[in-house]
Amino acid sequence: MAEAGFGIAIMAAGKGTRLKSRRPKVLHEIGGRALLLHVIAVAETIAPASEILCIVGHEAERVRSAVESTGVQFVHQTEQRGTGHALQMVKAWFTTSGATLPENIMVLSGDVPLIKAETLARFAAFHREHHAAMTILTAIPSNPFGYGRVNRKGAGEADVLGIVEQKDLPKGDAGSAEINSGIYCFQTEKLFAKLDQLNDKNASGELYLTDVAGLLVADGEKVVATVADSIDEVLGANTIAEMMHLDAAMRLDTARKLMAQGVTIFRPETCVIDSTVTVGPDTVLEPYVQLLGKTTIGTESRIRSYSVVKDSTIGDNVLLRNGCILEDSIIGDGALLGPYAHLRPGSDIGPAAHVGNFVETKKVKLGKGSKANHLNYLGDAVIGEGVNIGAGAITCNYDGVHKHQTTIGNGVFVGSDSTLVAPVTLGDGSYVAAGSCITDDVPADALALGRSRQTTKEGWVSARRKKREELEPK
Amino acid sequence: MAEAGFGIAIMAAGKGTRLKSRRPKVLHEIGGRALLLHVIAVAETIAPASEILCIVGHEAERVRSAVESTGVQFVHQTEQRGTGHALQMVKAWFTTSGATLPENIMVLSGDVPLIKAETLARFAAFHREHHAAMTILTAIPSNPFGYGRVNRKGAGEADVLGIVEQKDLPKGDAGSAEINSGIYCFQTEKLFAKLDQLNDKNASGELYLTDVAGLLVADGEKVVATVADSIDEVLGANTIAEMMHLDAAMRLDTARKLMAQGVTIFRPETCVIDSTVTVGPDTVLEPYVQLLGKTTIGTESRIRSYSVVKDSTIGDNVLLRNGCILEDSIIGDGALLGPYAHLRPGSDIGPAAHVGNFVETKKVKLGKGSKANHLNYLGDAVIGEGVNIGAGAITCNYDGVHKHQTTIGNGVFVGSDSTLVAPVTLGDGSYVAAGSCITDDVPADALALGRSRQTTKEGWVSARRKKREELEPK
Amino acid sequence: MAEAGFGIAIMAAGKGTRLKSRRPKVLHEIGGRALLLHVIAVAETIAPASEILCIVGHEAERVRSAVESTGVQFVHQTEQRGTGHALQMVKAWFTTSGATLPENIMVLSGDVPLIKAETLARFAAFHREHHAAMTILTAIPSNPFGYGRVNRKGAGEADVLGIVEQKDLPKGDAGSAEINSGIYCFQTEKLFAKLDQLNDKNASGELYLTDVAGLLVADGEKVVATVADSIDEVLGANTIAEMMHLDAAMRLDTARKLMAQGVTIFRPETCVIDSTVTVGPDTVLEPYVQLLGKTTIGTESRIRSYSVVKDSTIGDNVLLRNGCILEDSIIGDGALLGPYAHLRPGSDIGPAAHVGNFVETKKVKLGKGSKANHLNYLGDAVIGEGVNIGAGAITCNYDGVHKHQTTIGNGVFVGSDSTLVAPVTLGDGSYVAAGSCITDDVPADALALGRSRQTTKEGWVSARRKKREELEPK
Repeated sequence: MAEAGFGIAIMAAGKGTRLKSRRPKVLHEIGGRALLLHVIAVAETIAPASEILCIVGHEAERVRSAVESTGVQFVHQTEQRGTGHALQMVKAWFTTSGATLPENIMVLSGDVPLIKAETLARFAAFHREHHAAMTILTAIPSNPFGYGRVNRKGAGEADVLGIVEQKDLPKGDAGSAEINSGIYCFQTEKLFAKLDQLNDKNASGELYLTDVAGLLVADGEKVVATVADSIDEVLGANTIAEMMHLDAAMRLDTARKLMAQGVTIFRPETCVIDSTVTVGPDTVLEPYVQLLGKTTIGTESRIRSYSVVKDSTIGDNVLLRNGCILEDSIIGDGALLGPYAHLRPGSDIGPAAHVGNFVETKKVKLGKGSKANHLNYLGDAVIGEGVNIGAGAITCNYDGVHKHQTTIGNGVFVGSDSTLVAPVTLGDGSYVAAGSCITDDVPADALALGRSRQTTKEGWVSARRKKREELEPK
Repeated sequence: MAEAGFGIAIMAAGKGTRLKSRRPKVLHEIGGRALLLHVIAVAETIAPASEILCIVGHEAERVRSAVESTGVQFVHQTEQRGTGHALQMVKAWFTTSGATLPENIMVLSGDVPLIKAETLARFAAFHREHHAAMTILTAIPSNPFGYGRVNRKGAGEADVLGIVEQKDLPKGDAGSAEINSGIYCFQTEKLFAKLDQLNDKNASGELYLTDVAGLLVADGEKVVATVADSIDEVLGANTIAEMMHLDAAMRLDTARKLMAQGVTIFRPETCVIDSTVTVGPDTVLEPYVQLLGKTTIGTESRIRSYSVVKDSTIGDNVLLRNGCILEDSIIGDGALLGPYAHLRPGSDIGPAAHVGNFVETKKVKLGKGSKANHLNYLGDAVIGEGVNIGAGAITCNYDGVHKHQTTIGNGVFVGSDSTLVAPVTLGDGSYVAAGSCITDDVPADALALGRSRQTTKEGWVSARRKKREELEPK
Repeated sequence: MAEAGFGIAIMAAGKGTRLKSRRPKVLHEIGGRALLLHVIAVAETIAPASEILCIVGHEAERVRSAVESTGVQFVHQTEQRGTGHALQMVKAWFTTSGATLPENIMVLSGDVPLIKAETLARFAAFHREHHAAMTILTAIPSNPFGYGRVNRKGAGEADVLGIVEQKDLPKGDAGSAEINSGIYCFQTEKLFAKLDQLNDKNASGELYLTDVAGLLVADGEKVVATVADSIDEVLGANTIAEMMHLDAAMRLDTARKLMAQGVTIFRPETCVIDSTVTVGPDTVLEPYVQLLGKTTIGTESRIRSYSVVKDSTIGDNVLLRNGCILEDSIIGDGALLGPYAHLRPGSDIGPAAHVGNFVETKKVKLGKGSKANHLNYLGDAVIGEGVNIGAGAITCNYDGVHKHQTTIGNGVFVGSDSTLVAPVTLGDGSYVAAGSCITDDVPADALALGRSRQTTKEGWVSARRKKREELEPK
């Protein structure tokens, strides 16, 4: 998909003062991931990560560590001297690193996350077709106030005379209705040749990248502009409220795509579904469900309300009752979970197995048709098929120093409220009596008990009451 | 309420290709039940179930099994040859079954679930008053494109010339603005006389029931049309997204009705309430509550957020804290539940009783004022009044083969973390020590213990640490 | 902030028949508190509570007990004879109580909860500036039908001729477009002088306070009117549905204010946040979170969906996973809770401590870095630092008669499924074996066991099966 001959520079150095937040603006999240990660993901459809440069400045280390796993490069803009200065840093980076100059550079904003791959592909193609030194992506909003304005040579012409910032408009001049989106393509060498000519004689006292347009035109170079299909795509969010609005829109869009594929989603606007999730047809999502990360769900399953599933694989005909929390788990076909089952990473629940209410699992393999239905903690265990884990039974996997493994064979019956002190193995078909503390391995087919005999003291309650009445003042 | 002299035929044979779903369209759910069940419920206001014929075809067995408990009859349309063919099957069914022909047949669509009883009653009356051979229910949508069009003899006249499908409109002819809803009344004999004259010489190659209109008119029979009050009532849903929209509208309508009866529902659009639910005045529903099936709630109760109540009866002054899940249970006046109480079928909670957090009950009678407040599993038990069930206490009702009963008298104290191995009986006023495993009946007023004496090994921890340090390489 | 020279009378005697509720209208809740409490809170910006008179009538005792903690005074209007009669009762109250007459009286409605402090301050100033005997707060709604109408001397003039109720408008007269909000200022003596001249010769047969306007004008007194900035502020709610609408608007307003302060709130319209809550910047609230009462949250914390926090203090960098319920608790910096942790009043969770799934705490101090992660009930306990509480371990704090304390030192390891029978103390660094019932104090560094040795019966399961097969008919 990548466009040969394009490098990318993403502006990610700003502070986002209007957010009233210490978190850098580009690290605010919508649709489950940081703004900058959305932009990087789209940028990767134009150039490989190794040719994407993130220009970082404010909280540079925090930004870098949040996105470096993508493999992008970083350019440090230690002073905040404007967009032109940011590109000067890019130029310096190429000099220092010795990296090959790409023929063109596309400039993106790290806080404009809704830009689409198709838009950028068309934009790059437009730049090439016009053999332009600079191409500007523009938009025509209902109210252009506050934005930089693009002045064309004439109505309907591709060619541009220059860009004027709102602050620098002559008094009384409303300016052009066409705004600069802050997204550009440049021929790299022509851009770099002009960067040193920028000056800060303007209302902000910064070096404007937009002034390159005028400088190129003055040299007789071709500067063109093309209008984006949708104003929404090129607008950023300046307040948290605006970001939350983008978040909801992005989520609803994902829900709509799934519904079009045959997934039933009741109250789709209430669900939180990452765009990375896949769901099979005829699966039903009840209201207030969250499907996050790399989650995959099969067909004919049903996820009840208030459940949250992250990075998990759920088969066909699975029922998650209300309030299940799953992370990094695998659920076999026909399994039945919850309500309020908590499956922590490494839970592998077999087909037709049951994990019931107030049960926690972690690094557990539960075999086909096995059941752990009530108030269990199962950690670091391999459990066979057809096993019944009684109410309140617990694996003691931690001795204060190390974690140990519990192994349970097929067809085992573990009585209620029993305690399995790992490391321990219960053989196939063995039976643990209710209330037992099991510290030694149990052979197949054996009964294990670890509890005291009951003793009963008749009349004890009335004797106690009498004694208390004697002792306590009335 | 039934209109004498009417049988009903419901079209339920279609596939609903645009849904991208294997589930037959008429079995998709809104407002908590299948589209077809909504239509059958309304049809039953016109005719008894025994005179309602569902025409099934696509996944006929699945449709039949989903609705047969209503008592309707089924007509199989094994080939999908159009609406006229569907009625031919109905005619054949009458011949084969020998059932008495009703004087009139009303034809409904199984995927038009919002049609109201009052609308059908008025429609049937209109049909009778005009002594019509055929009466068409119509609507005037903002955009008629795609629908069959009804041509009247003249503006404002009841009499109709015929119906033309969109696909069969002459080129350049926008057609009438009045559309056919697909809902009709026929005099049965006049309908049946025309069915054999239908042909498939049309754009779809199917037998159109709508062609009966023209055939009747050609014979000088009276064919009339009447416009439905609301376009919404007669429109179906063609995509899942549209169905979800109908679902939300239906739910909100239910919430509004309850509010008008004195129920406080915060964020009414967030609640999921079946139309079968009743709630007394001055009861408060917090946001994100679900009331399903045959649930009844008294007055002055409060249901906190994220609770789901199904087929249960809740008294007055009851408090359900957050996240309670109830099914097929009875809750006495002044009871206090949750948060996160899970009451499974057969739970009968007495007045002023408490069922606390992470407690599961099933087939349990809990007496007046009794408390089970923390981490209990209570199954197959009869528990008296004024009983205190300690934290973590569990009834062991299953021995791997059979389920057994636990019986607890009045005023019993069951210590924390004790295990009651059923079948077992605790007499009135008896006391079970914490941590006991109880296998034998306990007489009234007696103390029962089933736990080991504590032993303490001083200095053990530092000895263990020393040993470990000697063994483990540093 | 209080305006010297103003007393307040709040109309709170009505029934609110249209609500179909036994609860008095002014006690219905929006934004987490009763309508009347909202009005009292605003009134307190004009006058101290001791000079605010609530006129109560319908369910007077219930209203009084719901608001008396604010310190306001109560005037009983035992008969429902209209607004003029209500002020006659106020006059009588002053006579009986001997309280000093304020120079002016402002009249508010107990069911108009959105009125703002700034509006009342401006209104009081307007009254003073005009040296008016009576000042009326008015509004111009899109449809004035049903409201009392204010007739001015001339367009744009402050001076008023009188107020006419809808019911008393001459036939065919649509009336003035400017409505009476029911909020007034009076010079007290001039008001009281006119109250006895009121009569009930009108459509309702009640004494109208509004007639005072005409009486004053007839005496040559100055009666003026001023229009409220926002119609929303002065409108009450007559149905529960309307009240729910006000509730949602009030909540969303609170969410917006927090977002403007740097708090990230996903799906802000889904959160339930009381206006009394404070949240630090860079804290993230996921959808469906509820923050109630006097809750304070620090910075960089995250509250996951379906959690409900009431009257609690949460530090910085805290993570509440899904479905936590907190009340009257304190959570230290960096603590990790849930999912489904239930912290009842008096829970004090130290920095970096963990309280995990299905854990309940009550009157518990949990030290720095200590962990109680699975299925615990911890009540009436002081727990040191670096303690590990195993899965299912329970404090038995209640013996059926008294509650007792559990004390756990630093660095203690409490094995899974152990039972700590209070009063009991575990010394620093001690170790409780899994499955133990601990009834005696454990010295520092000691190991305590209280469980039975395991016994194993080989071949028991197959023997049992064989026996059963012999006994049961096939």
